[in-house]
Amino acid sequence: TDTIRATLFPGDGIGPEIAESVKQVFRTAEVPIEWEEHYVGDQVDPRTQSFLTWESLESVRKNRVGLKGPMATPIGKGHRSLNLTLRKELNLYANVRPCYSLPGYKTRYDDVNLITIRENTEGEYSGLEHQVVRGVVESLKIITRQASLRVAEYAFHYAKTHGRERVSAIHKANIMQKTDGLFLKCCREVAEKYPEITYEEVVIDNCCMMLVKNPALFDVLVMPNLYGDIISDLCAGLIGGLGLTPSCNIGEGGIALAEAVHGSAPDIAGKVIWQIQLPYY
Amino acid sequence: TDTIRATLFPGDGIGPEIAESVKQVFRTAEVPIEWEEHYVGDQVDPRTQSFLTWESLESVRKNRVGLKGPMATPIGKGHRSLNLTLRKELNLYANVRPCYSLPGYKTRYDDVNLITIRENTEGEYSGLEHQVVRGVVESLKIITRQASLRVAEYAFHYAKTHGRERVSAIHKANIMQKTDGLFLKCCREVAEKYPEITYEEVVIDNCCMMLVKNPALFDVLVMPNLYGDIISDLCAGLIGGLGLTPSCNIGEGGIALAEAVHGSAPDIAGKVIWQIQLPYY
Ligand SMILES: CC(C)[C@H](C(=O)O)[C@@H](O)C(=O)O
Ligand SMILES: CC(C)[C@H](C(=O)O)[C@@H](O)C(=O)O
Repeated sequence: TDTIRATLFPGDGIGPEIAESVKQVFRTAEVPIEWEEHYVGDQVDPRTQSFLTWESLESVRKNRVGLKGPMATPIGKGHRSLNLTLRKELNLYANVRPCYSLPGYKTRYDDVNLITIRENTEGEYSGLEHQVVRGVVESLKIITRQASLRVAEYAFHYAKTHGRERVSAIHKANIMQKTDGLFLKCCREVAEKYPEITYEEVVIDNCCMMLVKNPALFDVLVMPNLYGDIISDLCAGLIGGLGLTPSCNIGEGGIALAEAVHGSAPDIAGKVIWQIQLPYY
Repeated sequence: TDTIRATLFPGDGIGPEIAESVKQVFRTAEVPIEWEEHYVGDQVDPRTQSFLTWESLESVRKNRVGLKGPMATPIGKGHRSLNLTLRKELNLYANVRPCYSLPGYKTRYDDVNLITIRENTEGEYSGLEHQVVRGVVESLKIITRQASLRVAEYAFHYAKTHGRERVSAIHKANIMQKTDGLFLKCCREVAEKYPEITYEEVVIDNCCMMLVKNPALFDVLVMPNLYGDIISDLCAGLIGGLGLTPSCNIGEGGIALAEAVHGSAPDIAGKVIWQIQLPYY
């Protein structure tokens, strides 16, 4: 078989240590993969307006597959968040986080088996904010038909090709009738093309209540950006935390950038103690 | 002692049945209270633009204390949601929901003891939404210094007068730097006046993860409108559901409007079966 070339961002903090282990896993499994390693730069690249280099983005564009460790955005002015730069520049429109109860890792729940699919490019993450008058600020949430349709399409296609039965669209359209209303409208349109998948709509507050009472009620969840941010972390909490949930960002043209969702854990970086915190190793 | 006059909105569905029991509880406890009952009207009152009558709002304004059952907003055009009308017209700026594990009511958690305090008048609930071009809609989230300060003040005062030790401000200021940033700034200002209360800031996604892992980490939580909507329901789920959480809306000038947060449950209304679903009666 041909060798796969993949981009690897070891990232910050514990990232490089984890990246070593990841490479070892691939070697042991004899996956014919060749890593192109890219580190976050130590100064702002004017072409990306962030500490991510243009070359590293080009590497993902070319390889179409990559893996990223935790990235801590350096504090200061004049540059963009590393995670947001990746999402915007590579048009990573869907963030997919499978969330399963792990046998042997005890939490209050043993019945979690769901996938959160988050719109990853717009909504509350538009970055459009301003002060109207002193003491009055506003931020814009943007919902577009194009981005809503493509994430809904991704969710239904995922459900169909992964033997899933139900897609729940999470929203607050009783309050945000136009924005979340458009998101729901797009989900409904796509749902019609997948008659074999049950489609339902759940208000976000009710969804969170049901998730903590009975997560087994859910299968595939699709939602606008911020709700996805909140619910994917909530679901990670159900099974034990961010260290246990895989995450993949899907971009136009089939780019897949998998990522660690936990932080860079600077307090334990370099101490080679993280392994013993994992349940299985 | 003087008789207290209070406004009672029995509300819809199971509301009137519950209201009867509530009145009986007060009678049995020999509370000297006199109820002024107001029903939701059957047509839009032009002075409130909703099915709530002007007289009913005047009653709360005069009595300064009230109790409301569930209200199902009738569907249709040309009127406002009943809950939102109450919040806006009476300037009910803080929604307070204490959330305790009830001994004897078994859930996955037995260590919940927290209070959510939600800004109740602005944020994502501004109602300001529009279509920019076909397929592109936006909604405005509004955060003001005035509303943020008063809810923060309420939260710290509540903490101090209720023997609470910590206030956590919940936000997403890493993304919404100006809006949630202003909210945090106001919380910090108020925190300085309460040196005996520990103050911390928690990002909403992380907060939800920690709440489901270890709710005992939290004491008093204060947050903008939508986060409060989401987190108060999540917390209700931890202890068993919306039927078990009291809720009170606090308005300028000391108005207090307590409310049932569960729905109107039309499926069981009039059947007098709801009592047996409660744990203690
Ligand atoms: C770090 C932060 C900007 C990011 C987000 O809000 O999307 C994170 O919470 C995530 O879920 O990937
Ligand atoms: C019914 C709905 C408009 C309301 C809200 O979103 O505030 C409810 O969820 C609540 O929490 O009181």
